[in-house]
Amino acid sequence: MTEALRLHKKLKGKIEIKVKMKASQKNLHLIYTPGVAEVAKIISEDPEQSFFYTSKGNNVAIITDGSRTIGVGNTIAEASLPVMEGKAVLFKTLAGIDAYPLCLKTKSSKEIVKTIEFLSPSFGAFNIEDIESPKCFQIMEELEKKDILAFHDDRQGAAIVVLSGLLNALKVMKKDLKKVKICLAGAGAAGYGTFKILEESGVKNLIVVERKGIIHRNSKDKNKYFEEIAQATNSQNIKGGLREAIKGADVFIGLTGKGRLLKNQDVSLMAKSPIIFALSNPIPEIFPQEIEKATKDYLYATGRSDFPNQINNAMVFPGVFKGMLVKRKRTSLKLEAKIARAVAGLVSKPTRKKILPQVFDKRLNRSIIRQF
Amino acid sequence: MTEALRLHKKLKGKIEIKVKMKASQKNLHLIYTPGVAEVAKIISEDPEQSFFYTSKGNNVAIITDGSRTIGVGNTIAEASLPVMEGKAVLFKTLAGIDAYPLCLKTKSSKEIVKTIEFLSPSFGAFNIEDIESPKCFQIMEELEKKDILAFHDDRQGAAIVVLSGLLNALKVMKKDLKKVKICLAGAGAAGYGTFKILEESGVKNLIVVERKGIIHRNSKDKNKYFEEIAQATNSQNIKGGLREAIKGADVFIGLTGKGRLLKNQDVSLMAKSPIIFALSNPIPEIFPQEIEKATKDYLYATGRSDFPNQINNAMVFPGVFKGMLVKRKRTSLKLEAKIARAVAGLVSKPTRKKILPQVFDKRLNRSIIRQF
Repeated sequence: MTEALRLHKKLKGKIEIKVKMKASQKNLHLIYTPGVAEVAKIISEDPEQSFFYTSKGNNVAIITDGSRTIGVGNTIAEASLPVMEGKAVLFKTLAGIDAYPLCLKTKSSKEIVKTIEFLSPSFGAFNIEDIESPKCFQIMEELEKKDILAFHDDRQGAAIVVLSGLLNALKVMKKDLKKVKICLAGAGAAGYGTFKILEESGVKNLIVVERKGIIHRNSKDKNKYFEEIAQATNSQNIKGGLREAIKGADVFIGLTGKGRLLKNQDVSLMAKSPIIFALSNPIPEIFPQEIEKATKDYLYATGRSDFPNQINNAMVFPGVFKGMLVKRKRTSLKLEAKIARAVAGLVSKPTRKKILPQVFDKRLNRSIIRQF
Repeated sequence: MTEALRLHKKLKGKIEIKVKMKASQKNLHLIYTPGVAEVAKIISEDPEQSFFYTSKGNNVAIITDGSRTIGVGNTIAEASLPVMEGKAVLFKTLAGIDAYPLCLKTKSSKEIVKTIEFLSPSFGAFNIEDIESPKCFQIMEELEKKDILAFHDDRQGAAIVVLSGLLNALKVMKKDLKKVKICLAGAGAAGYGTFKILEESGVKNLIVVERKGIIHRNSKDKNKYFEEIAQATNSQNIKGGLREAIKGADVFIGLTGKGRLLKNQDVSLMAKSPIIFALSNPIPEIFPQEIEKATKDYLYATGRSDFPNQINNAMVFPGVFKGMLVKRKRTSLKLEAKIARAVAGLVSKPTRKKILPQVFDKRLNRSIIRQF
């Protein structure tokens, strides 16, 4: 049994409920009936009061259907519970937010949206997590229509940290965001989100490649999100696969979920002094040894904590949710790009080995909340 | 502002999430990705493992739609949140159970059942709370069909404590359960539940009176639960109101929600040495001063903590849920009656002023779990 399994078996779950006061026969009439009836009455007359008299304003529901569970893929909701508990640990540890893991036994986006709507009286915001695309995008659109505060960390959180990392990586490698050619591999939640934030940030030369090849004007078998990518990227309408996409790129961003996808021959096709973000977990798209067969002049980042330059959503989602809860406001693409710049700004002198702050950097939350 | 309001405003909610271990950059790989993927994998192959590697086995969802909120009645779900948080405080304090208040923005029993089904991967059991009857009964029937563990505290919990109290009250007043005439006022969740457990326990002479009068064979405007009561009680088919119902009764059980419903003239109609359970909260159906205008020889109990003989569900629901979670088994009427006898047995020498243990009596849980 591995260390992770042993830990989970010993703890029987990583979170529990904590009572904020000592309950006794003596104060039962304040905590519960009859005293609590006065609180119920005040809220029944003005639902807004639930933010002042209950924990709602600090409560986030982490919602998944288990369709994109780490290490497993599309599986039963139960299997995603330990992942969601881990996320709840980060919510509490990094931002003091009370997050409730709710793993749903339905794969239907319509039913997921309905369930979230029904749950909305108890929560200040919702985190959509590990739900496959494009379903996750549809869910977020519906929630916005219903004016329910939600954040899709896999997409929006990932996009923010990728842009943060990229801004500082470009600084280090002396390249210009508006001039570089970027090859983005992967068009799932993180890939689509990264496309959107790069577009918002003024990137001009972007090419997106996914499982079936480069996304271009005449790509078949597209959903509306792929269509959006096709319209806004690849202005030369290049067709082909990864090799055709990476040719001449200054930046490679890997969000494919495919370890060791990239070879040194691919790196050789890139522009001078390439920036390589190999963000697939746990196995990145390429390791440094392989890159160095092609060039020694590069900047490298992964999603892992055992390499320099970890690009991890956990850097931003706690602060983003705190901002959403405190300001009662959803994020926009513009705000997300602003947050990315603020996070990048926390590293005053980025280097090849240090483009981003650590996940546990205490300045992160305040800096992110200030952007709202 | 009252003390209860002040406390709630200061605390901003009575519960929060607690992390079971200190999370740091160092153990992140065990708590979250990549280590958590191994746990997800094990559960994806065998959902049963979620009881060993996550908090599921100790998690209860408290489900309400706000339709029977204390002090308010049928209201928005938000208003029931402070009540459900109070319940969660009791769950944790009295039985170490992690209970999550989930107040649903729907009044439809079909949608409530669906939502519970969707939520089932994250919870070991569900507590149905403050939902109006007969909707609450229909929900419980559907959940049983779907084999989802649930307990309806307003009905089943209330019935258990009423029977517990009654058994000892009869002992004190030297009356026999199988011979007494019982007048039960109220046919909502608690009233119906009490009818069921009294029937199960061999009570022969029971008459149920609700808002529209005594329930009898020819009562109009009945649902199937009223029909059940009509068939099994009031063998003489007496018609009329409270006065006709209470005539000659040894026991009055008030579960009406109507304070000061009973007058001394009604008590005068009862048999000698009456037992009066005036359980409406916060105002009981009658106060001792009023009873004493009719007789000095009586036994009196309420739902309040500031009178002797408090009859409170909180005495049993923590132990019942612990039993359900540990044994992975729902309760039956038979088991509920057995639990009631066990709880009554904890008071070895009941008196007029002491028929039941205190809510915080540490022997309760073990004694209840042993009955499963």
